[in-house]
Amino acid sequence: MAGSLTLLLFCGFTAPKPPRRDAAPRTTTVRPNIIVFLVDDMGWQDTSVPFWKQMTDLNRRYHTPNMERLAKEGVKFTNAYATPLCTPTRTSLMTGLNVAHHRVTNWTSPNKDTSTDYPDTVLNQVAWNVNGLSPVAGVDRTIHATTLPALLSQQNYYTIHAGKAHFGSAGTPGSDPKNLGFRVNIAGSEIGHPASYLGEDNYDRPVNGKHNRNAVPGLETYHGTDVFLTEALTREALKALDVPVRNKQPFFLYLAHYAVHTPIMADKRFIDKYLKAGLDSTEAKYASLVEGMDKSLGDILAYLDAQKLTDNTVVMFMSDNGGLSTTPARGGKAHTQNLPLRVGKGSVYEGGIREPMLVRWPGVVKAGSVTDQYVIVEDFFPTILEIAGIQKPAIRQSVDGRTFLPLLKNPALRDTSRALVWHHPNRWIAAEAPLVSWASALRQGDWKLVYDHRTGALELYNLRNDIGEQQNLAGQQPQKLKSLAALLTNQLKRWDAQMPTFKKTGQPVRWPEDALIQPKQ
Amino acid sequence: MAGSLTLLLFCGFTAPKPPRRDAAPRTTTVRPNIIVFLVDDMGWQDTSVPFWKQMTDLNRRYHTPNMERLAKEGVKFTNAYATPLCTPTRTSLMTGLNVAHHRVTNWTSPNKDTSTDYPDTVLNQVAWNVNGLSPVAGVDRTIHATTLPALLSQQNYYTIHAGKAHFGSAGTPGSDPKNLGFRVNIAGSEIGHPASYLGEDNYDRPVNGKHNRNAVPGLETYHGTDVFLTEALTREALKALDVPVRNKQPFFLYLAHYAVHTPIMADKRFIDKYLKAGLDSTEAKYASLVEGMDKSLGDILAYLDAQKLTDNTVVMFMSDNGGLSTTPARGGKAHTQNLPLRVGKGSVYEGGIREPMLVRWPGVVKAGSVTDQYVIVEDFFPTILEIAGIQKPAIRQSVDGRTFLPLLKNPALRDTSRALVWHHPNRWIAAEAPLVSWASALRQGDWKLVYDHRTGALELYNLRNDIGEQQNLAGQQPQKLKSLAALLTNQLKRWDAQMPTFKKTGQPVRWPEDALIQPKQ
Repeated sequence: MAGSLTLLLFCGFTAPKPPRRDAAPRTTTVRPNIIVFLVDDMGWQDTSVPFWKQMTDLNRRYHTPNMERLAKEGVKFTNAYATPLCTPTRTSLMTGLNVAHHRVTNWTSPNKDTSTDYPDTVLNQVAWNVNGLSPVAGVDRTIHATTLPALLSQQNYYTIHAGKAHFGSAGTPGSDPKNLGFRVNIAGSEIGHPASYLGEDNYDRPVNGKHNRNAVPGLETYHGTDVFLTEALTREALKALDVPVRNKQPFFLYLAHYAVHTPIMADKRFIDKYLKAGLDSTEAKYASLVEGMDKSLGDILAYLDAQKLTDNTVVMFMSDNGGLSTTPARGGKAHTQNLPLRVGKGSVYEGGIREPMLVRWPGVVKAGSVTDQYVIVEDFFPTILEIAGIQKPAIRQSVDGRTFLPLLKNPALRDTSRALVWHHPNRWIAAEAPLVSWASALRQGDWKLVYDHRTGALELYNLRNDIGEQQNLAGQQPQKLKSLAALLTNQLKRWDAQMPTFKKTGQPVRWPEDALIQPKQ
Repeated sequence: MAGSLTLLLFCGFTAPKPPRRDAAPRTTTVRPNIIVFLVDDMGWQDTSVPFWKQMTDLNRRYHTPNMERLAKEGVKFTNAYATPLCTPTRTSLMTGLNVAHHRVTNWTSPNKDTSTDYPDTVLNQVAWNVNGLSPVAGVDRTIHATTLPALLSQQNYYTIHAGKAHFGSAGTPGSDPKNLGFRVNIAGSEIGHPASYLGEDNYDRPVNGKHNRNAVPGLETYHGTDVFLTEALTREALKALDVPVRNKQPFFLYLAHYAVHTPIMADKRFIDKYLKAGLDSTEAKYASLVEGMDKSLGDILAYLDAQKLTDNTVVMFMSDNGGLSTTPARGGKAHTQNLPLRVGKGSVYEGGIREPMLVRWPGVVKAGSVTDQYVIVEDFFPTILEIAGIQKPAIRQSVDGRTFLPLLKNPALRDTSRALVWHHPNRWIAAEAPLVSWASALRQGDWKLVYDHRTGALELYNLRNDIGEQQNLAGQQPQKLKSLAALLTNQLKRWDAQMPTFKKTGQPVRWPEDALIQPKQ
């Protein structure tokens, strides 16, 4: 079984038609610059760019003209995925590993050796990698891996980290982006969200006279000004780009905004129109965070234009997990913030994992193209290495991601046999919401299997007809259910994925396929 | 004319029927304790107690069970008024003076000699008393007056100030409640709102590493705890009461909550139900502030019960101006927060000045009674002096307020000839909203006259039929308009009220009656 699975996972794309001429790869000796523009907690619908087959109310709510520009000039991925949470996604992006494989299955605490799992009455915690990613061996409870920026640095890319890092806990090497291969680090540390977005607050919010645990480091220039955090990061990132641009050195800019994560604070430059539109107060603030982020994207694109770098720079837009859908911190009705998708951040339902992804690469990517092929965040790792022309890199880990460079060249390529896997053997938060805790999932073709660790329930959805995962077809499609459960089981076993144990019995949660044949616990 | 006006202002109540027996004043030698429970920025409808003829959606939104109790056990004033803004109201309460008379016509800056007037293109600022109230002579730009707590202290009342003072700017004697006659001061200073309601924040929100200008002083005990500001003030107020209670000394507690002023922050003890009810996020927070305030009232009432002080304590509930109706900081649609009343804080329309007022005095006030007689905040001064049994007090100012003790004894008393006056020759904020700036107004009987300083427009409303001030009857009732304009003019002249001048001509804004007969400027 493992053999055939490997085959499924590693088989290539099938090309329904030959690549179009205008999407053919360029032959150039100049290595392209690469920008990964990563947003935090941005949902699939938090944009005026429609990623679904129809324009939604949420698309009409948000104003992201620069994302619209990027979509117009590049390719839109309608089925791009991350993991349900931030550190797991970021670790996958930096290592090419699936979450079940790297075992950073929950967000990492800024404090070392601290599990962020919320206590549960049914299941025991697993010994996941609570300290995150490590570039060196011997650090307790980390995944030791070769990182993307380290590989790029070795090949003379000028690597810049700007914004939220959140790769590892304080006191471990992974907490500092410079230890992960970034030459420059702007405002990145072990923290997972800012204490404040306001320069007036120094991006801090002291507690009992001490700096907030989540005070954003390193932006002292903007302290006491009215410069919003998103803007400060952008300005510093552009300043940092001047060095490689001047030296004609290829660069890798990883601009990972703190926006649009909580605290949901108004970006005063943009909030008025949302309030006037009658939006819920918190949702208006959220929309202003989104538009502030989009303005940053616009500034980056304008910089590339001004520097005549547009043609030789790959710009990749991505978010790290689904939009937050718990209230508070969000406004409105809980779990409606990602409609038509179900639930949001933390969940293995589509609302928690489907992302707005765009890639522009003039001359390679056809302007205004769309691909419906599903991809996942660990795919960025091999793709970027390939774009950078790095041959046979020395990588200690066995990479799970697959290059989507062929898709950039031909968005019509299809592979419906590939299986994507999500694994979250953790309890994220106190609130109970559909599959925001203790869950695994798999997608193959249009089919989606979700597995609830606590109840042993397996659900089956056909995403083509039912993107909202409302019609559980497990009863109607027992053969499909069985085959996907076997596929998920085999993949999890292959990665030696961690399964929680029941408090009552001490027994581990069964593998998905076993949940089918045995009575439910 | 001045003579007849004086007659109008000082004529007594007419009694349509004899006072009821159970509302007769008690003969007792023990002087009653007096509690003024003053809320900040609370609107007339921010309560589950209906103050209008019908229950409103807002009444259904808010949960104030302890106000309901107070209404059940005391008298409800359906036509109680304050001024449109905080310091003006507080100065009137402490001095018995009308706002046009004391000339603290806008909120006072925490900083000395600083006008808070927003720059205007049409009118020049007046030389109002920007430093607020002063207990001593010779302080620039203050109203020097004998204060209520000073008079009570002289008569051996144990006087406690808890919460927001905001009587005068820092560096002037009026900034410290102790200088105004309070024996105890809990958390009161020159500030007009808290930097934060959270103990976790130390009720502060540092700016550039320095304490916030609006950090709440004196509650160090609660720093670093999860005690909400409203709760901390209540606990400290009750602790302070133990002294006079133990010594059997009559007390005057002025518990002036910072709630429900901005910053609109969630009181976590109460917010969930409002979010679940689907309220706008900010409005849910606001409702939680309101309920936290109501819980404080409940704690005060419970303390009186436990100490067997209920029968000998007068509890007066009041707010200092209408509910804030600008968005942001409020959520929802601007100027709907005080419906059925028009506009809100800052305006001389009813939304800015009508207040939820309740008074309980067992044995004197008939439980569950209602009075529709209009009263105004300067009336608290002579009323409280009379309740305290202070005969012929030495007061340097000529008091404008009138005792409502007769109304407490007989809520059916009516005086439709009395004229109430509002005067706001200031620009409060940048936002333009109906009569939130540069306005005067008068009420007599059911009639309301409003005067727009900038345009010279006079509007006339009949509040009995039109509480929302939607039908301007100025054209239909020229005689009524003329007589009220004359009444307002004479009263303003009598107080030598300040009128702004036009930037263009240097000429003062005309008196209301002159605006009728001359072409509009």
